[in-house]
Formats: sequence, C-alpha cells, structure tokens
Amino acid sequence: MTVLILTSEEDVTADMVVAQLHERGVPLVRFDPADLPGEGALSAEYVRGEFRGYLSTGGRVVSMSGLRSIWIRRPNEPAAHAAEPSAWLSAESGQALYGMLDCTAARWMNDPGAAAKARLKPLQLRLAHLSGFPVPATIITTYPQVAQRFAEQYRQIVVKAVSGKPPSDPPMALPTTLVPPDADFAGVAAGPTLLQRYIPKRADIRLTSVGDQLFAARKVSDPGQVDGRYGDTGHNWKPVDVPDRIERSVATYKRLAGLAYGAFDFAEDSEGTWWFLECNQGGQFGFVELQTEQPIAEAVADWLSTPV
Amino acid sequence: MTVLILTSEEDVTADMVVAQLHERGVPLVRFDPADLPGEGALSAEYVRGEFRGYLSTGGRVVSMSGLRSIWIRRPNEPAAHAAEPSAWLSAESGQALYGMLDCTAARWMNDPGAAAKARLKPLQLRLAHLSGFPVPATIITTYPQVAQRFAEQYRQIVVKAVSGKPPSDPPMALPTTLVPPDADFAGVAAGPTLLQRYIPKRADIRLTSVGDQLFAARKVSDPGQVDGRYGDTGHNWKPVDVPDRIERSVATYKRLAGLAYGAFDFAEDSEGTWWFLECNQGGQFGFVELQTEQPIAEAVADWLSTPV
Repeated sequence: MTVLILTSEEDVTADMVVAQLHERGVPLVRFDPADLPGEGALSAEYVRGEFRGYLSTGGRVVSMSGLRSIWIRRPNEPAAHAAEPSAWLSAESGQALYGMLDCTAARWMNDPGAAAKARLKPLQLRLAHLSGFPVPATIITTYPQVAQRFAEQYRQIVVKAVSGKPPSDPPMALPTTLVPPDADFAGVAAGPTLLQRYIPKRADIRLTSVGDQLFAARKVSDPGQVDGRYGDTGHNWKPVDVPDRIERSVATYKRLAGLAYGAFDFAEDSEGTWWFLECNQGGQFGFVELQTEQPIAEAVADWLSTPV
Repeated sequence: MTVLILTSEEDVTADMVVAQLHERGVPLVRFDPADLPGEGALSAEYVRGEFRGYLSTGGRVVSMSGLRSIWIRRPNEPAAHAAEPSAWLSAESGQALYGMLDCTAARWMNDPGAAAKARLKPLQLRLAHLSGFPVPATIITTYPQVAQRFAEQYRQIVVKAVSGKPPSDPPMALPTTLVPPDADFAGVAAGPTLLQRYIPKRADIRLTSVGDQLFAARKVSDPGQVDGRYGDTGHNWKPVDVPDRIERSVATYKRLAGLAYGAFDFAEDSEGTWWFLECNQGGQFGFVELQTEQPIAEAVADWLSTPV
C-alpha cells in the first residue's frame, strides 16, 4: 500500500517525512498537481459498477486501489506547469485528480472538504469556543461604530486578516497589528475586518497535532511583541508540556473539524493561560522540529503509513 | 425564524420560492454576497464563549440565532459589486460571510462543503455506482491510447467537460459531443478528458430531488440527439413516475453526498432504463416547473420553512 504526497517540488517539510517513510520501507509517490497534464498522467475508469484508477509520475504508476493515505502538503494549482496553462485547464485537471482520489478508500491528511471549512476564521473561533479553549474577545465587522465600540471596551486590540493572505502591494496593516482605540475605523466599511483583544503575552505557543500525538513548543516573547511568527527575537522554540485541559480541547476541536492534522497557535499570558489564536490545518512544522528536535515528521510518517 | 436566500438579483427560480414563502408568511432575507461590503453589512462577535452575528441588507437585519435555513441558489462572488473589487476583498468577504453562517444552527440547502465535493464529476460517477444507478461506461484520462481503446470497445462515445463550464472562446467540442471511434485522440494528453459510452435514448429525464420529495420530468428525444439541455426539439417536459429502484438510489446518493437538493439527469434507453448521467447539486428547476406544473418551488419552500 502506497502513500501519496501532494506537494511542490521544493518542500523541506515534505522531504523530512519522505526520509522517514523511506526508512520504514513504505512505498510512496510524491506528486505536484501542477505537473498534470505533462509529467503526470491519470486514468479513471468507471465500468459496470467498478472503479479503477491510476496516477503516473516520473515513470511510477500508482493504482488507486493500492493507496493507503494521501497527504496534502503544499501542492501547486493543477496544470500550472502545463504548456498552455489556463483557468479552464486547471479546473478540469483539479476535478479529475481530486475527484479520482475522492473515489478511493485512502485516509486523508486532511480531507479537502474539511480543510476548506477549517480555513474559515469565523468558524475556527466558534469551534474553539465549543472545544473549551480560552479565546480572546473577537469581532469581524463592516460597521465602523461596532469596531469603535469594541476598541473602546478592550483598549488594546489587534487587527488581522480574515482569509490569511494579505497582498503586499499596496502595503496593509496586516498580518497582525496593534490598533490604538482612538483610531479612525471608517475604513472598516470597505471590507469585513477582524479585531481581537490583544493578549499581553510572555510566550508564543505552537502546538502541532498529528493524529493523536501532540507536540507543543514555546518561544519567549519580547515585551509588546505582537506576531510571533515574524521577525527574529533571539529566542528559540523549546518543547513544553501540554496542559490536560488543552489536550482535551485539541481532541474536541479536531473531531468537530474533521481534521487529522492541525497546527494551533496560542498566546501564553502572564498567568500561564494559553489563549487560542488560530488553528492552521496546513501549518508548517519543519521550523519547530529543527529547533525542538520533536519527532513530528516521524509522527506524520506513522500516521500516513498506518494500514487502512 | 428566518430563511436566508443567497442569490443574484435576477433569479426567476428564486422568485418562485420567495412567492411561496411570502404566501406562508415565513420571514425571509434575500441577499447577494456581491453586495458585501456595500448594500450588505455584517458583524460577528465572539465574546466569552458566546457567538452573536447579524447580517443586514436593504434596511433589514437578520440575527444569526434567528436563522432557520440557508438556501444557496445562484450567489455572485462576494464583494463583486464593491467600489474597488479585488480578489483579496472577495476572499476576505467570502470568509467572513460563509464562516459566520457556518457558526449557526441553520440547515443548508446545500451545505457548501458537501456542494463542493458533489461537483466533482469523478466522485459523482463513483457515488452513482455505490447507489445502484445504471451508469454508462466512462473514463477520464490523459492517455491517448486508453481513450483510443475505449472508443474501439464502445464504438459510440461522447466527450464531456469534467468541470462543467467550457470556455466559449475558442469554441470546443463540448459540452457533449459524439466522437467517432477513428478520431485522433492525441489531444487527450493536453488535459484530462471524460469519454462516455453513448446511450441511444428515447427520452431525457430530469429528476429534481428536494429533501424527500422527488419530481421527475421526461422529454422525448429526437433520434440521434445528444445533449437534451440544448436546442429546441419541439418536445416539452412532462411529469413521469419515478421507478422504485431509482427512488431508492436517489435516497442513497443524497445521503452519501450529504445533499438536501439535487437535480439528476438520466438518459432513458429503448428498454426504459434510466442511465445516470449526472447530479447537479445546484441545478435549476424553474424550466421544469413551468412546463410540468410540478410544485417544486413549493417543495423547496416547505423544506426551507421546516422548523429547526
């Protein structure tokens, strides 16, 4: 039984898992949907109630009935490397590939449908509530007066992107920026804006959850630092124990969201409380593993190579 | 409790359901996501474990806790009518709107996650098999020799789009076109191609499934006619009974796909067998109701106004 890894050619995180799978002798195929059609080819047959499918890439052919698991790491757009790329060709190729893969009994990390829902920030906040995480007070609004009132109530607030990928041109006050309460919130009417109570934190927590295994890492924050993901603070990620309460909440969250993998970000306040900031269903773990030496790639390889 | 209908301003099919809901005195809000931000505004608050949200449009405000059901008919892209539209603004607005709606207890027709999967043609074919429908032999392939062999085996085959929306410029041999078995299949390598055994048919069947209610309509085909959806044949849609076997298969298919609504297309062959062609989770029903007088809009209104 084969593991299928969908990712781009240059992906150090995937390399780490591939090395682990090679060590175990688990057959794997690594494929970038951008190479379909071209380097990659597929065929799916639906005849007399039977389904047969295969995907070939780099001279290897993998049968859909022989797929054990599928890891969606960081794939490019289907058909992106085609001789004559187009939105239409990408749509056709994506439908053919992901539709064929959906016909298999393979386990997904993560299922594309669950992943799409899990990216919705408003739903993340709701699931975090339902899972029992402490969540900083948050609004998403197009009403300037609602934003104004929120700012006056909480004084220290931050603004974030809802969908997660701000354009760099023109520059915007994102990804995460402190907003003074006397700011002019008129611009909120131009697009839904996420405002969150700022949690003064003494550390950032990154909790990587792979199946039932949890790996938490902690990085000391400089006073007043807002977004721990950017900039060099001179502090490193170090392993940290997961409080029982958080462990239960992570399990609930992942069950509600239907996720096999999730990278949770928390802010640790001065009393040691971990505040839920977000759960990135496709979050990187390479940088954490490199600094903490936690065996995350091994855990991913374990999960992927578990028999169906 | 309010019904939310997401669709564009001009939508005769939605108008029919709106009229039915008005007759019942069921409160409803009709909203086009293109009008967010602008005509439409929203606010979602996540404070101390509670979620509160509201959407306002045309002077009406609907609370998320008061939503009974959500009907996704034919909405435009979020923020499409914004003063300065952009892909980024559409992503932010779509995340905010659909993410907030996902936090509610409302019933969806159809759930966006289920709808996205249900659009995958390869998965449709597999679900149709699993549901017990007769399905014409089909392949989706990038291998010219596989296409060639399929054509030789079945002689009469058609080519279809996988993703369903062919560009009109340049013109392509789609939506559905007969292919002679001696055709040159080299072009298949340029993109995944769906080929299907042609079913010589005496009629097209459109079966509209709304919750547990089924409405089947039949239109006599002219000899050799391939795609019943296009062109005027002089024949009209007429109501027809649903065979028991088909009724069971429809129920299974919708359960597997997680759909509340589906428009099924079949080809009726000379022996009266209904061959599954596709299930469009967002398929129109207005044209069928106008010709058959089947109360489909009423059934949709029934489903939407059922108490949570």
